[in-house]
This record gives sequence, structure tokens and C-alpha cells, in this order.
Amino acid sequence: MKLDFGKLGGLVPAVIQDQATGRVLMLGFMNEEAFRKTVETGLATFYSRSRNKLWTKGETSGHRLVVKEISTDCDQDSLVLRVEPLGPGVCHEGYQSCFYRTLKDGEWVVVENRTYDPGLAYGGQK
Amino acid sequence: MKLDFGKLGGLVPAVIQDQATGRVLMLGFMNEEAFRKTVETGLATFYSRSRNKLWTKGETSGHRLVVKEISTDCDQDSLVLRVEPLGPGVCHEGYQSCFYRTLKDGEWVVVENRTYDPGLAYGGQK
Repeated sequence: MKLDFGKLGGLVPAVIQDQATGRVLMLGFMNEEAFRKTVETGLATFYSRSRNKLWTKGETSGHRLVVKEISTDCDQDSLVLRVEPLGPGVCHEGYQSCFYRTLKDGEWVVVENRTYDPGLAYGGQK
Repeated sequence: MKLDFGKLGGLVPAVIQDQATGRVLMLGFMNEEAFRKTVETGLATFYSRSRNKLWTKGETSGHRLVVKEISTDCDQDSLVLRVEPLGPGVCHEGYQSCFYRTLKDGEWVVVENRTYDPGLAYGGQK
């Protein structure tokens, strides 16, 4: 299970993809401990760069990511996790995916509607 | 088109996804110049951390990535590019996707066959 955590100061990027639809839902970072915890628990767990701690996605909102498959790339320095997302959306802004904006004529445009009220799910927390 | 390049020392991760199949083909990093060049040319261009320079994917192999759509996430610090890949594979190891290994019982296992001979496509170069 050796991964190359050295290129990004102890982290690897982890792409979270909806197993059912193929949609990319979010991108997080894992350190070695977050990766181990993800494998052991089957729930996507990340290292928060802003809060300097591990967080299991959904620990506040309940919108957990159940891991179905983990792949790594040729350099073993990034991951793709195919997941079953629990709940209506992954993004703390209330969208199904964090990637809810698309570039159109040089501007980022919101291309979809919210799927839930983030104020209710997070109660002011992210 | 403002992105947050500050969190990773001038880089943002860019997930490359096949527009037709939804498969994640690779993950690269872009600095601001690589992102601008990607938008201007319509061909995915990255910043190589090992070679410290821009590289347009396919400049050696011909396996270019024609960009169809670019999305960013809630924090504007990562990208998803939906592309049409030219050629039989994206990975310099000869596979369709760089994510050709999956975790099975604690080991990374190659789960698919090569789609081309990387020795012929790259002539010893990556």
C-alpha cells in the first residue's frame, strides 16, 4: 500500500468520484494516517490543511462517503476513490458536487441548483 | 477566472476526466501560466514539478487532451477538466488511465491491460 507522500509535504490528492454516476464530487488531501483510516473504516477521511487535523467527511453533516474502490496512479502520488455518497450532496455550499461552477467565456458560472440547505446540515460549521 | 494558487505554492490540482466515459485519466498540477495556456489553446497543459517547466500533455507522444469543459470547486483551489483524449492512452506506462491499479486486500493490483507500447510512443522519454 506504499504511496509517495513526499511530493506534497506528506499529502496526496484524493479524487472522490460517485461510483454510480462517475461524477467527480470533490477533491481532498490525505496524509498517511487519513489514508490508513479510510482503508480501515471504509469511510473517506481527509487531512484538513486549514484545520491541521483529520476529518471524516460527513462527521458534521452525516453526508458520509462509503468507499467502494481505491485506485492509485503510475507515480503512486494521487488517488481516485469511487464512493457511494450518503445524503443529498457533498459540497458544504449545498451542491451535489463541489465542482458546481464551469468556465464560460472567462467567467466561473454556477451550472446547477443546490440539492440541500447547507445551513440546516452544517449549522454554521463546515 | 480567479483561482486560489496559494495553498500549494502556486499550483492547483487538475483532475482529467474522459468526457465520453467519465473515467478519471490522470491528475496533474497547473500553475497560473499553465491554466492560462490550457484555456487559450484548448489543450491540457500542466506544470511539471519534477522538471520545473510547463508541458502540454502529448507534446512527445501525440496523445493530447482536448479540453471540452473546465470546472472549479467551492474553494476555487482545484479543477476538473472534461476532455477528449487523443490516442490510445494517457499514461506514460502504456495504459488508458494512470489509475490502472486498485487496492485489493492491502496490495495495489494492476486491473487492466496496456493499450499501447510506451517505448514506441515515448522513445525513452516521458
